[in-house]
Amino acid sequence: MDIREEALNAHKEHQGKLQVASKMPLKNMHDLSIAYTPGVAEPCKEIALNKDLSFEYTCRGNMIAVISDGTRVLGLGDIGPEAAMPVMEGKSVIYKTFADVDAVPICLGTKDQAKIIETIKLLEPSFAGINLEDFSSPKCYDIEDILKKEMNIPVFHDDQHGTAIAALAGILGALRFVKKDIKNVKMVVNGAGAAGTAIGRILLNAGAENVIMVDMAGALYEGMPGLNRVQAELAKDTNKNKLQGNLAEIAAGADVLAGVSAPGVFTKEIIGSMAKDSIVISMANPVPEAYYADAKAAGARVAGTGRSDAPNQVNNSSVFPGLFRGALDVRARQINEEMKLAAAYAIANIIPENELREDYVVPDVFNPMVAPAVAAAVARAAMETGVARIKVDPEEVRVKTAARVKLG
Amino acid sequence: MDIREEALNAHKEHQGKLQVASKMPLKNMHDLSIAYTPGVAEPCKEIALNKDLSFEYTCRGNMIAVISDGTRVLGLGDIGPEAAMPVMEGKSVIYKTFADVDAVPICLGTKDQAKIIETIKLLEPSFAGINLEDFSSPKCYDIEDILKKEMNIPVFHDDQHGTAIAALAGILGALRFVKKDIKNVKMVVNGAGAAGTAIGRILLNAGAENVIMVDMAGALYEGMPGLNRVQAELAKDTNKNKLQGNLAEIAAGADVLAGVSAPGVFTKEIIGSMAKDSIVISMANPVPEAYYADAKAAGARVAGTGRSDAPNQVNNSSVFPGLFRGALDVRARQINEEMKLAAAYAIANIIPENELREDYVVPDVFNPMVAPAVAAAVARAAMETGVARIKVDPEEVRVKTAARVKLG
Repeated sequence: MDIREEALNAHKEHQGKLQVASKMPLKNMHDLSIAYTPGVAEPCKEIALNKDLSFEYTCRGNMIAVISDGTRVLGLGDIGPEAAMPVMEGKSVIYKTFADVDAVPICLGTKDQAKIIETIKLLEPSFAGINLEDFSSPKCYDIEDILKKEMNIPVFHDDQHGTAIAALAGILGALRFVKKDIKNVKMVVNGAGAAGTAIGRILLNAGAENVIMVDMAGALYEGMPGLNRVQAELAKDTNKNKLQGNLAEIAAGADVLAGVSAPGVFTKEIIGSMAKDSIVISMANPVPEAYYADAKAAGARVAGTGRSDAPNQVNNSSVFPGLFRGALDVRARQINEEMKLAAAYAIANIIPENELREDYVVPDVFNPMVAPAVAAAVARAAMETGVARIKVDPEEVRVKTAARVKLG
Repeated sequence: MDIREEALNAHKEHQGKLQVASKMPLKNMHDLSIAYTPGVAEPCKEIALNKDLSFEYTCRGNMIAVISDGTRVLGLGDIGPEAAMPVMEGKSVIYKTFADVDAVPICLGTKDQAKIIETIKLLEPSFAGINLEDFSSPKCYDIEDILKKEMNIPVFHDDQHGTAIAALAGILGALRFVKKDIKNVKMVVNGAGAAGTAIGRILLNAGAENVIMVDMAGALYEGMPGLNRVQAELAKDTNKNKLQGNLAEIAAGADVLAGVSAPGVFTKEIIGSMAKDSIVISMANPVPEAYYADAKAAGARVAGTGRSDAPNQVNNSSVFPGLFRGALDVRARQINEEMKLAAAYAIANIIPENELREDYVVPDVFNPMVAPAVAAAVARAAMETGVARIKVDPEEVRVKTAARVKLG
């Protein structure tokens, strides 16, 4: 059976992948009188006096929405909200399995930015967080920025920030292995869409001082015509020497080359032109900028891809479950830059120094330590930056998350 | 421990009552490659070619939304969307437990009718049905009417129709017991809000020819000032003799008296003035128009209430799980009058003729035959009236639903 047939059968077998389940059994009238009328009136009355109690007395406290309009799904493009559902549902299953986060897949029947924003805002009372997914660029930037300002729960566009955190974690792990400091290396990011711009930004926030963004039009520089607002802001903080040129020209001598772009664009020649102990992270999926073996053969010291069939997988499945687990556990009002960095550092530091190898610089997606470590670090960062509604012990978050992981 | 303390503890213990669960285990990279990338692209591509396949390949096929704006919650009134969550969540648990319907509780952060309508419409690609709940009247009428016209999935305001179906089922069961025909009896409905008007309408649709609606202003009659549009329409089809008068005056000589009104208003005198073999159904909750024992003592031949601690409980928990189970199993485009009537007849006919007693005219909410019977009848009616997307065997719906019920 090929993967197409297996995937279609698996999705059909149980009518998708996700269901709801009761946390309170209803075996008799008494149970019903507690879960429903008249007993249910008691938590209603408490919450009416203090809305924040909805995080405590209802499923809202552990429930987020994974929301899309289906305009940029996988490599398939604008396939519509119904067709985007399997991806959102898959994400929900990962949230549940990896970190016991209850995520509801919601695909909206509109592509209109204002309607999308309005609708998501109105969903706030039911959820403790919003994972934005597969919205086309540049609309995705405005939707996230506006919602972050106008909502009191975390709003997180995973295509941007989940990917960026995963990339940073992979790069940091690789830098640990080759013993280079992020401050001193030349880093090139190929692809300046939603994911690429977020990678550029998080590298800067992590202390990188020499980042150059490259897109199909070449290196991004301050004042370059045709940039969107996010690219223009990023161009101000990157490529300090305002270099112009194509990928091959810019990547020469680079220590790190990260791609969220197109299959096969990291050629043997480009990788061969990089600095000693070069790091090549190819996140185009399923066909990467350079396959693991090809990158290695071309001279990369450390290579990584988005694929699960090669070493050093760099994938946001390592990120978003633990990230929201931590955010939920402190009832965070938002997910800020500090929390994103904390997530990346947590992943990058899971492998002990003496176990790092060139083909093992980042933990496996199925490593059960990942989500607990990320959750604890994110919870701590949220408390330290004042966006947590409640205080918790990060170590307790780690231990409890470990108990909630349902892998293997 | 009193019920207040028990209810608060129970809601706090597990952070509410509902969670999501995976239907597809993720134990290794292969599982992930089927549930998520790259395998997930296959159902996406199929659905992009035919949207209806989303009912088959995604959780949408078994998933509805229970939506409220929190403006008329229980007897608590306008307590807001956060505080309404426990009720919606309780409803979701009942859906799951009684008929394996996956229901997601959604409380909207607006009271604006146009925004509510717009938001719910945009949720259509993710759900196979919408249960409207606890919207204030008369806004609830317009919201349902407009959404029914503009959406291609069932939209069902349970406060109206679930209550009406439960009332009709109870009345039909009582009429079976006293051997009266719905065509020939005088029926008085006290309360002309959302539930009352729906009861009036379904009684007419079930063949009643002598129905009189009574509200605080007295009997409703054609041309009465101050009626909303639903009351005005109903006034045309009821109270043919345009009687005017208060409840006591109108109820005299009635065969059936049903209340969705206020505690204690069915006095001893009123019940005593009814016809021989009278039927009194008191649905105000938790304090009914007449308690069971009081109604019996006042002369009612058959009495029923919304309460679980007395015989003949008339409650929409008997209705909505099986109703949506049947609608989902045929992928219904709507829930029409025929389906509602079918649900009521199914409930009313569960108790065999020779087992009917004055204190047992309707099956218990926990009777495991109810949801299967309702689901089968609703599926059949949907197919017969052309609102089913697919054909199924109603007997198979009954058997499969019985296997899905998780009671006891």
